[in-house]
Amino acid sequence: MSFEPIPRLAVIGCGLIGSSVARAARASHAAETIVIFDANPAVRERVRELGMADLTPDDPIEAVRDADLVIFAAPPAAIGAACEAAAPGFKPGAIISDVGSVKGAIGDAMAAASPAGVFVIPGHPIAGTEQSGPDAGFPELFEGRWTILCPRASDDPAYDVAVARLSGFWRALGAQVELMDAAHHDRVLAVTSHLPHLIAYNIVGTAADLEEVAEGEVMKYSAGGFRDFTRIAASDPVMWRDVFLLNKDAVLEILGRFNEDLQALSRAIRWGEGDKLEALFTRTRAIRRGIVAAGQESAEPNFGRNRKGV
Amino acid sequence: MSFEPIPRLAVIGCGLIGSSVARAARASHAAETIVIFDANPAVRERVRELGMADLTPDDPIEAVRDADLVIFAAPPAAIGAACEAAAPGFKPGAIISDVGSVKGAIGDAMAAASPAGVFVIPGHPIAGTEQSGPDAGFPELFEGRWTILCPRASDDPAYDVAVARLSGFWRALGAQVELMDAAHHDRVLAVTSHLPHLIAYNIVGTAADLEEVAEGEVMKYSAGGFRDFTRIAASDPVMWRDVFLLNKDAVLEILGRFNEDLQALSRAIRWGEGDKLEALFTRTRAIRRGIVAAGQESAEPNFGRNRKGV
Repeated sequence: MSFEPIPRLAVIGCGLIGSSVARAARASHAAETIVIFDANPAVRERVRELGMADLTPDDPIEAVRDADLVIFAAPPAAIGAACEAAAPGFKPGAIISDVGSVKGAIGDAMAAASPAGVFVIPGHPIAGTEQSGPDAGFPELFEGRWTILCPRASDDPAYDVAVARLSGFWRALGAQVELMDAAHHDRVLAVTSHLPHLIAYNIVGTAADLEEVAEGEVMKYSAGGFRDFTRIAASDPVMWRDVFLLNKDAVLEILGRFNEDLQALSRAIRWGEGDKLEALFTRTRAIRRGIVAAGQESAEPNFGRNRKGV
Repeated sequence: MSFEPIPRLAVIGCGLIGSSVARAARASHAAETIVIFDANPAVRERVRELGMADLTPDDPIEAVRDADLVIFAAPPAAIGAACEAAAPGFKPGAIISDVGSVKGAIGDAMAAASPAGVFVIPGHPIAGTEQSGPDAGFPELFEGRWTILCPRASDDPAYDVAVARLSGFWRALGAQVELMDAAHHDRVLAVTSHLPHLIAYNIVGTAADLEEVAEGEVMKYSAGGFRDFTRIAASDPVMWRDVFLLNKDAVLEILGRFNEDLQALSRAIRWGEGDKLEALFTRTRAIRRGIVAAGQESAEPNFGRNRKGV
């Protein structure tokens, strides 16, 4: 598919994801002029030092002025306010999107803050690392990953054109694109992302609080499995606070399912039901193979860590 | 420290760990003659094809005869019986050890099955990957990792010499060695390894059972965090069944702590207590930094996956 570059892209919020969008847009020539704004003056200064943007205004309204595509990459709970602050500068016909991990609440907030005549299309690239800030981004972050767009109800054919244009932008950045209802997105991500983060944060906290096992021991012997959890428990605290608050219902519901299953597993251990344990542990192997087959994971043992003796 | 090679090493059980011990002993010249036995004839045949051992007898008594060091690397619950089956061949003065992930129950079983005149020293290398079988092992597996030895009560000075010799063997394989009481080992590993595996198996099972989210969706969007859990949930089912049954008390106790913390976290989400969430999520970052500083983890974002666009 041919893709006409976006004449002017504005990225609002320049952490890991925002800076990766800007870098990927530059590297792939998906946008001609790139404008970056961040509410934090120190981040704006760093963006200037890194030379990531053509323009780095100090005002959000200036930042979005004349932009054909505006992508909000602020922490999830801040996107609504950021959109409201920038909205007076929106160009008629602009595409207004975001990268937040929750789509129902954020989509509603952006729609409420936006004037008529722009196209609000919430989006979410399923990609990231445990690092944060404008230095953490890199242009390959979205390659081979999925970006989910959650178009809002509309019978305007121009809206469909805008969705196709935004899809093309993400494909130019290397992503695969899927369209999905926002409520379904929030349930799927509660499973594949929000619950795993919640559990990882919890287990790392539990380990840190034990009296009889020293924190140094937890660190020394972490290669037995624990260290994998610490990677995602090192993710951005503000972003994740927002995710759990904005997707509360779906997270609590899936957490209830997880707890039921964990009680059953706990009972099987207590009563020595080895067959039940082995049956579950065999079944879960197949899921891993499916993820590798779907191109979303490295097939190398131990994430390839041992290649370098790490 | 100088280390005199072990004249004859017998490895009983040749999966990921057993085959890595044999390969590492060969590569490091830590043993002169290497004998491998596995209860499964197909595995013995594969060991012969791979040329990993000098001898691959079909009988466990033959396998341990004249061995100065015997390392049991069978599934945890099978080690006691494997030791009993081989014991008639033990050479007086031999060191009898293992690699099982639980040390109390396995140490007791090996001691009960062994004659007087040998030195039973339970051991546990904290290393592994999610793969299984004789083809999965590699000689660098233990490099930079910790091996915990749990010497049994003894006032025999020759026992201390044997512990020093076994420590030297593991160091020759690249490991760092720590001595620890078996009960403490079982509590530490319940935190750093057994609980993480239990949680990972559980969450992958929960995700697979959801009616409203298709398994294909779980796989496609797993890069949001879920895929990290699937790595350890792909570990050997029989081994892990045994671990939970043999370390039941410590696992259930630590699971109780985990559950308490999870209820508190769940409550904080329900009542919108963002400050509590952010405080926990900030604290857990420090643990990750400690693990990287302790040399037990890669500092590269995303385990270095993105280097290759994986």
